[in-house]
Amino acid sequence: MTKVTAQMSVSLDGCYTGPRDPSNPNDMSTWMRGPEAPGFFRVTRWVVDAMAWRERLGAAGGERSVNDEIVAETFAAAGAYVMGRRMFDAGEVPWGDEPPFRAPVFVVTHRHRDVLERAGGTSFTFVTEGFARAIELAKAAAGDKDVQIAGGGELVRQVLAAGLLDQLELHVAPVLLGDGQRLFDPSLGLRADEGIELVPTRVVEDPAVTHIRYDVTGHAQLVLDDRGASGELVSPQD
Amino acid sequence: MTKVTAQMSVSLDGCYTGPRDPSNPNDMSTWMRGPEAPGFFRVTRWVVDAMAWRERLGAAGGERSVNDEIVAETFAAAGAYVMGRRMFDAGEVPWGDEPPFRAPVFVVTHRHRDVLERAGGTSFTFVTEGFARAIELAKAAAGDKDVQIAGGGELVRQVLAAGLLDQLELHVAPVLLGDGQRLFDPSLGLRADEGIELVPTRVVEDPAVTHIRYDVTGHAQLVLDDRGASGELVSPQD
Repeated sequence: MTKVTAQMSVSLDGCYTGPRDPSNPNDMSTWMRGPEAPGFFRVTRWVVDAMAWRERLGAAGGERSVNDEIVAETFAAAGAYVMGRRMFDAGEVPWGDEPPFRAPVFVVTHRHRDVLERAGGTSFTFVTEGFARAIELAKAAAGDKDVQIAGGGELVRQVLAAGLLDQLELHVAPVLLGDGQRLFDPSLGLRADEGIELVPTRVVEDPAVTHIRYDVTGHAQLVLDDRGASGELVSPQD
Repeated sequence: MTKVTAQMSVSLDGCYTGPRDPSNPNDMSTWMRGPEAPGFFRVTRWVVDAMAWRERLGAAGGERSVNDEIVAETFAAAGAYVMGRRMFDAGEVPWGDEPPFRAPVFVVTHRHRDVLERAGGTSFTFVTEGFARAIELAKAAAGDKDVQIAGGGELVRQVLAAGLLDQLELHVAPVLLGDGQRLFDPSLGLRADEGIELVPTRVVEDPAVTHIRYDVTGHAQLVLDDRGASGELVSPQD
């Protein structure tokens, strides 16, 4: 069955980039010279390193690093993608004539635009009826494979908050940024007595990054349960 | 050599409690009825469960759950503790005559108070000269064991920002709270091109919680390094 999945590289404090430039938050032609970029490069460094490893060994393959396996597996699992408009704007030019997706990509946007066909199996379809509709279209296009929410973080958060995400994989880079765009924030819209529960299903360790995959269980009530005195060891209340 | 360590239970989005009650942020006698408590109980549930497991098996021991082992190991490693004033205020009454620390505890506070001696080896010494001085005193008291920053989160963050933390272990509960007190926030005081680097040294997996231990490397400059075209797969910029 087609799952809706997402995966993001984040810092240990949950940022996927540095902070947005408040004077110029939406100009994707200059973001690389702004405060977002150093954090973005740091949290995705493991991917660049994995790619470098693959290239060094040559296309014929042979030994793979665990991080290279994760990258390859991530691309292989996706039958279609759903992408935010800001990520598309940043990627359109540098991805060039043969983008890496090699599958249909559904871009959530307010502006209508004709389908872009690219070499290698990638197409960009612009969906103006919201992310739920984009996911519907992506499911129909994905065949037996997964629909992957490609990003950015804001779209991942919206899909999660709407209860439409089945699986989340975080690639946690061992660095603290202090400030930046957080994958999860109060816009998840949870009450103080409510959480979104997940179950960790796989952890892959590497000194450069910790990969943790979760099944998303969904919204749940949080309970006040200290089960009596044993809680005293860590719970400073009676 | 005595290391300075910290360990905290956090949600997947980095909160160690729910949000503080803005109308009553510092009254430790009522916090359990406020918005902080549901999140706190959720992220520390694994400890309560581990304790329940130990009690069910009886003091004679035998099989231990991996989470129970982590709790026992954490207490055993600490030769002395440094604690924030707010955590002490919340714990003083419920911890009772024989607190679980069984070692000297140095409380960072602005108010002088005489040393409290408790049964079982716990003492509380009130340090008004700041956390660096409290760590110094704790090191002198810890013997061959570690100095553990007991919490709360604000103190852990201050010690980390000051470059005084050697090891950090996070117990990541598989839940998103959306909002709450974050262990890491902009008060770490990092520039956009600066991070605090760590190295993961141990991951222990359990369905209820993922334990990740890090050595803290320290403050480092972040670099813009996409190493050429291979970065295009994930880096939407040229």
